[in-house]
Amino acid sequence: MAHEIRLVNEADLRRAVHLDLEVIDCIEKAFAKLATGTVVMPPVLSMALPEVNAEVDVKTAYVPGLDGFAIKVSPGFFNNPALGLSSLNGLMVLFSAQTGLVQAVYLDNGYLTDIRTAAAGAVAARHLAPAVVSTIGILGTGVQARLQLIAAAKVRPAERALVWGRDRDKARALAKDMTAALGIDVVATEDRQQLVADSQLVVTTTPAKEAILGADCLHPGLHITAMGSDQEDKNELAPEILAKADVLVCDRISQCEKLGELRSALATRTLQDLSHVRELGEIVSGKAQGRTGDADITVCDLTGTGVQDTAIATLSLGKVKKANAGTMLVS
Amino acid sequence: MAHEIRLVNEADLRRAVHLDLEVIDCIEKAFAKLATGTVVMPPVLSMALPEVNAEVDVKTAYVPGLDGFAIKVSPGFFNNPALGLSSLNGLMVLFSAQTGLVQAVYLDNGYLTDIRTAAAGAVAARHLAPAVVSTIGILGTGVQARLQLIAAAKVRPAERALVWGRDRDKARALAKDMTAALGIDVVATEDRQQLVADSQLVVTTTPAKEAILGADCLHPGLHITAMGSDQEDKNELAPEILAKADVLVCDRISQCEKLGELRSALATRTLQDLSHVRELGEIVSGKAQGRTGDADITVCDLTGTGVQDTAIATLSLGKVKKANAGTMLVS
Repeated sequence: MAHEIRLVNEADLRRAVHLDLEVIDCIEKAFAKLATGTVVMPPVLSMALPEVNAEVDVKTAYVPGLDGFAIKVSPGFFNNPALGLSSLNGLMVLFSAQTGLVQAVYLDNGYLTDIRTAAAGAVAARHLAPAVVSTIGILGTGVQARLQLIAAAKVRPAERALVWGRDRDKARALAKDMTAALGIDVVATEDRQQLVADSQLVVTTTPAKEAILGADCLHPGLHITAMGSDQEDKNELAPEILAKADVLVCDRISQCEKLGELRSALATRTLQDLSHVRELGEIVSGKAQGRTGDADITVCDLTGTGVQDTAIATLSLGKVKKANAGTMLVS
Repeated sequence: MAHEIRLVNEADLRRAVHLDLEVIDCIEKAFAKLATGTVVMPPVLSMALPEVNAEVDVKTAYVPGLDGFAIKVSPGFFNNPALGLSSLNGLMVLFSAQTGLVQAVYLDNGYLTDIRTAAAGAVAARHLAPAVVSTIGILGTGVQARLQLIAAAKVRPAERALVWGRDRDKARALAKDMTAALGIDVVATEDRQQLVADSQLVVTTTPAKEAILGADCLHPGLHITAMGSDQEDKNELAPEILAKADVLVCDRISQCEKLGELRSALATRTLQDLSHVRELGEIVSGKAQGRTGDADITVCDLTGTGVQDTAIATLSLGKVKKANAGTMLVS
């Protein structure tokens, strides 16, 4: 009955799994499966721990056709920075979809989540942004600001990028790093309205609790992906932006209603009828129409789904096996 | 930022953690905490996978005062026996309650669940069974039949035990094993009504989907713990047993309404008003009265709670550290 389990730490995962087109395609396929209706994806298990200023989320999804399914635990302990620790940590466990036996434990401290989250941004950009993007705009200066820019540039090679952050020094550092990493001009700006005006593809990656973009910044041919809000108290886009979008897409409508930009738009009654809202999987699989022309304004609301975790965890097993990475434990 | 994580397999856990009074006391304290209202215990995340005849449950709880909290994943893949594998497997992950960092991964294949489940039976017996128990009756012949009998005997030393199972050979084998293990007479019987008539403490441990005991078996001075039902389609006790009990106790009322014996009693409208139903933690902590005298009939409905997982996972860390068990991984 004993079987082998592969235990992989963050360093090994960083060596074996990268934000590349293979990962983006893998996440795209997972979204397509989500639109077929055969995926089983329970609501997020969320445990708020106000006593220690923390929150723990558990996500999972069973995707028919994949060898495994992941269960991901994401603890967010927001007093950690004072201790010199990252707020976000966690792990993913990959189970066999045939037997339920544990296949692998990824002690990744959130690395695979970072990658699959950025990959979803690339999928949204690939299917919703205008065909030609000369400028990419990024709001925020954290890990996702970097990764979303890298991901966007893989599907929409741009001539330059603009970055904005509340902390100007961080924005400048990000611009410098990304100029070197991408080999294009990446410029920090203090004017986020102008950033949107000058961009065709914008990704918001902040933990904002009040809208940082108003509808007056919208212009024909703009795509915005808002991926910062994943909690009930977060909000990056003025609800009017969602109302004015020609195409409004969610990763999962039922989740965005609770945790995403859709929540604010519903709370303010700016949006009431959601019958026109599409899911990313429907766009990817051609079940629903995305952008109809160069002048459309498109918006994608991403909150992060269990299918992405299952997809990246399954793909990663092949990669770590090939790299002969990790420690084997019999149990 | 890297920290050490202890990875422990089933064999090491079986060597370090046993069903003893220390574990029973630990689980008892966890139930007492549950009654204080400061525990955070989200509803079970349950993912049904009919396509592969499986179900996956995730349980967790944050218990103030404990150094860690556990997240437990219990996959049940019911086609496994045909492959020579156990249906139930899974693992527990222990996180720091201060930082959310992973402290330990217990690749226990359900062993710690077995132990904490039996320990809850002992807690129920300690607080609800008559002071003197001469005969313990066990229905079922699986792992929990064995462990519940061991647990009951630790808090109510009996002269003999009776065991019943649908499979007579398994019941006889269980009786033989337990006679050797406990040093008391353990006898297999084919008459489960008589088993209850002759016992003061009965534990039902079967996966029955229809009641295996009717109310006609009740007698003064009887305590029944029903721990087999933990799913929406399971049922061991006729609803009239719950209605006729002088004291009716659940591990968690909100969970038993969905998954336990309480579910059947509510579905048949045999029980409608639950205002007299108590939780085990209330009894343990003295907030509610349990048995009032030797003649009371008491019933306890156990479905298994996240506080038990957090309690056993936290206790186990000390034990495996002391035993220097497991593999350390830096991540």
